[in-house]
Amino acid sequence: MTLPNPLPHAVGIDFGGTSIKPALVQGSTILTHGATFNPQGRSAAQTLDAMEESIRFLCKDLSSLVPVGIGLPGFVDSVHGVVHGLSNVAGWTEVPVSKILSERLGVPVILENDANAMAYGEWMYGAAAHARNAVCITLGTGVGGALILEGKLYRGSQLAAGELGHTSIDLNGRMGPYGNKGCLEAYVGNHSISARALAAYAQAGIPAPSEECTPLDLTGAAREGCPVALHIWQTIGDELGAAFANIVWILNPDVIVVGGGVAKAGDLLFPHIEHSLKSRTSPVISRQLRIVPATLGNDAGAIGCAALALAAANP
Amino acid sequence: MTLPNPLPHAVGIDFGGTSIKPALVQGSTILTHGATFNPQGRSAAQTLDAMEESIRFLCKDLSSLVPVGIGLPGFVDSVHGVVHGLSNVAGWTEVPVSKILSERLGVPVILENDANAMAYGEWMYGAAAHARNAVCITLGTGVGGALILEGKLYRGSQLAAGELGHTSIDLNGRMGPYGNKGCLEAYVGNHSISARALAAYAQAGIPAPSEECTPLDLTGAAREGCPVALHIWQTIGDELGAAFANIVWILNPDVIVVGGGVAKAGDLLFPHIEHSLKSRTSPVISRQLRIVPATLGNDAGAIGCAALALAAANP
Repeated sequence: MTLPNPLPHAVGIDFGGTSIKPALVQGSTILTHGATFNPQGRSAAQTLDAMEESIRFLCKDLSSLVPVGIGLPGFVDSVHGVVHGLSNVAGWTEVPVSKILSERLGVPVILENDANAMAYGEWMYGAAAHARNAVCITLGTGVGGALILEGKLYRGSQLAAGELGHTSIDLNGRMGPYGNKGCLEAYVGNHSISARALAAYAQAGIPAPSEECTPLDLTGAAREGCPVALHIWQTIGDELGAAFANIVWILNPDVIVVGGGVAKAGDLLFPHIEHSLKSRTSPVISRQLRIVPATLGNDAGAIGCAALALAAANP
Repeated sequence: MTLPNPLPHAVGIDFGGTSIKPALVQGSTILTHGATFNPQGRSAAQTLDAMEESIRFLCKDLSSLVPVGIGLPGFVDSVHGVVHGLSNVAGWTEVPVSKILSERLGVPVILENDANAMAYGEWMYGAAAHARNAVCITLGTGVGGALILEGKLYRGSQLAAGELGHTSIDLNGRMGPYGNKGCLEAYVGNHSISARALAAYAQAGIPAPSEECTPLDLTGAAREGCPVALHIWQTIGDELGAAFANIVWILNPDVIVVGGGVAKAGDLLFPHIEHSLKSRTSPVISRQLRIVPATLGNDAGAIGCAALALAAANP
């Protein structure tokens, strides 16, 4: 009698701008969270030492070290395992992270852009599970995205595909960070939502739910029936639907997974997205398309990285 | 001594709304054009008979019949070889063309959407040769497109990907055929170009170059220095650049191939496309991107179909 083969373990590290969160992962389960630490104020070398220590600690009860996947915010060469530069962390220019850590640890270490890692997690175990073609978008301060096409992470020719937040919904619209007028992020990024909501409250002569008027505040106000907040969510839904329609006409995916803080508006937002999208596409395409919230939450990155590490270690 | 293996032959059939053009193809060379015939006013059964006859005629000097590829305008299931319906030809509802013709001829017969067939031709032998990721767009009465991703034709989950003409450049703009406001085709399709040009000439109080004011007429007028025509091409270039920027942010391709009649405006149009696109994307992405005219012209469809037939026959 042979026991069923248990799912293999891997370490997934969610490397953010202010916190690095290592975890020991088995399938879609986070077995142990390692201590979180901050990359700010440390050199890349010091952070690499801390990551090595954390990986060894997480594996201390296993018979050996396990493959490691690291998701990072910025420009990452996932093929060669080199960080070209990070969005909000200084000192990470041309760092061959995979080579350094895999030599020290004796296990494969892979790198991935954080949006891609999250999408891979959602595709392996979350909202996009079993989809042949999936588009993932994350709505937060920034608006990021990633593509799974024909069952594989699609990275593009310079590993820069999936930047859905930089696509335009109006060629003469609001200016985005790379000169693209009508840039989606300039409409549905957290700061834009708050600024537009504050202006709408001022115009309506109604006090805003808070000084910051965050998406969470707007969700609260809308649930209490505030017409200004309800209208803001309708507008955001219309705009997201227009952006999604472009993605759908181009890629004809099975599913669009929506993650990040803004997605927590839930039923205040998703019906408007669906309505806008359906009014802009052919039924042949939209009939079978699902638009769903992400399900793995903050764990998607670590779970996705771990899965990518195992896929790379066992091709 | 063995002679080098000659490139295999295939028949490629470019099935258009008013003419069906069969050809015997070897690599990128059309060896023989068969007689062109019209699908209008014939039943599907009669057209299938005519295609069979034409294929047999084209192969009469070969030792045997060869694989056949057919590119059609409409909704085609290329996996099962079934025509669900054609854009401008009646009587082609749920016709299992591949099964019918392959049983009669004893060779593989594959079907493909015409935009995909053209893109495959350009990718195998034309402007997109050797590109890992290529986007092809055809500018005519309709605006079509197709994608080659990671070296393969990408068709999408309902075989409806690559509909670049239906993407929007302005969420509140001109209405497109599927309800999508800002639909690119409503700006840069032949009829829209002509209508906008006639309006611009009327407004400027200058006689238009012709009553129809076709893209070809506008190219002639612009080459003679007409400011109205020059400005029209600049506007079309700006709009195409905005649409291409969306594609580039999403897919990060190596090359965008521009075909169809409007592309013949050449240097009146392409520099404006490039300027618009570069002003809307990151240099990391746009630096290595090529935007090039299609090179196979009207033969791209037949060449692409023949290549697809050979690829399917020898997987």
